[in-house]
Amino acid sequence: MSAVMDTSRNGVDTSKMFATLDLIREQPELARFQFRATNRWIDGAHNRSMIKDFYAAGGEDASRAETFEIDAGEPAILLGSDTGPNPAEYLLHALAACLTTSIVYVAAARKVRLTSVESTLTGDMDVRGALGVSEQPRNGFERIGVSFRVTGDAPEEKLREVVQRAQARSAVYDMVTNGVPVAVEVRTD
Amino acid sequence: MSAVMDTSRNGVDTSKMFATLDLIREQPELARFQFRATNRWIDGAHNRSMIKDFYAAGGEDASRAETFEIDAGEPAILLGSDTGPNPAEYLLHALAACLTTSIVYVAAARKVRLTSVESTLTGDMDVRGALGVSEQPRNGFERIGVSFRVTGDAPEEKLREVVQRAQARSAVYDMVTNGVPVAVEVRTD
Repeated sequence: MSAVMDTSRNGVDTSKMFATLDLIREQPELARFQFRATNRWIDGAHNRSMIKDFYAAGGEDASRAETFEIDAGEPAILLGSDTGPNPAEYLLHALAACLTTSIVYVAAARKVRLTSVESTLTGDMDVRGALGVSEQPRNGFERIGVSFRVTGDAPEEKLREVVQRAQARSAVYDMVTNGVPVAVEVRTD
Repeated sequence: MSAVMDTSRNGVDTSKMFATLDLIREQPELARFQFRATNRWIDGAHNRSMIKDFYAAGGEDASRAETFEIDAGEPAILLGSDTGPNPAEYLLHALAACLTTSIVYVAAARKVRLTSVESTLTGDMDVRGALGVSEQPRNGFERIGVSFRVTGDAPEEKLREVVQRAQARSAVYDMVTNGVPVAVEVRTD
């Protein structure tokens, strides 16, 4: 293999990764990011988010060519017509995606070549909360279960360490387990 | 307008909605739902969730014809190639979508016809946490800002009450602000 190929592991450019980490260590102010979504109601349970711009490393990032459009909905039993996954399912996806990317990046940094990362997530909910039928159950999931299967060219112990480190560093895992302060403003004009 | 048309408000079948609420009041065991996502790593920051099956109202729900496939990624500065919104952006989308649907449903129940619901969400993050460069900043967003613009055939005060009630009942708002217990299992075979 050439030296150029060697810098990529698990599809991650590790020389770029280590350069980024060094840069942020030297200039911590570059670590301030802001991500954004704008959402528009379409009809009933159907709404759509547009995601493109974000702030990163001292300025607006202009590298994204495309605006991502993602549609949400509800199944029939929750009065929708399946125009997309529902919001709680998107939260499971966000968690799965963040843990998976964290596993892939941590493995790349630790010289572990992965062959597969698969997960199944479940969220249990008593919908009486969200439907306003009872004060007892909470609105959201009571618990989330995440089941990973991870394979690669490392012993089981090392693969488990990679998952543990990823869990300890995942942005969405932190948010979903610990919560985030949310400020809501409303205009009606 | 015919009586049939009258049961729909904001694209929500209100007679079906009230029937559902009555049924769940009478048989609370029908309120137990489980949502699911399965995720598979593709390459680098690219992974994909499949969302279809769920448990609802006493059994497996088979009403969904389609499997939703949603792709996650990262922008170049976070070592990806924009194969999709990133996981933290999906969390913003989940929150926007849940609050929006809650507003639409609450308004339908309270006889408010909405003309528009738009929102912009921002999440501020110091990426030193998630990148493992520093123990100081948390991994996830320090704060999330949600800015709604809601219009409809009701006075400002009533529209604000609808948003407040939606916020008090939103499943994802509850999870993002209060957190959820997450159990992670790992297989390596």
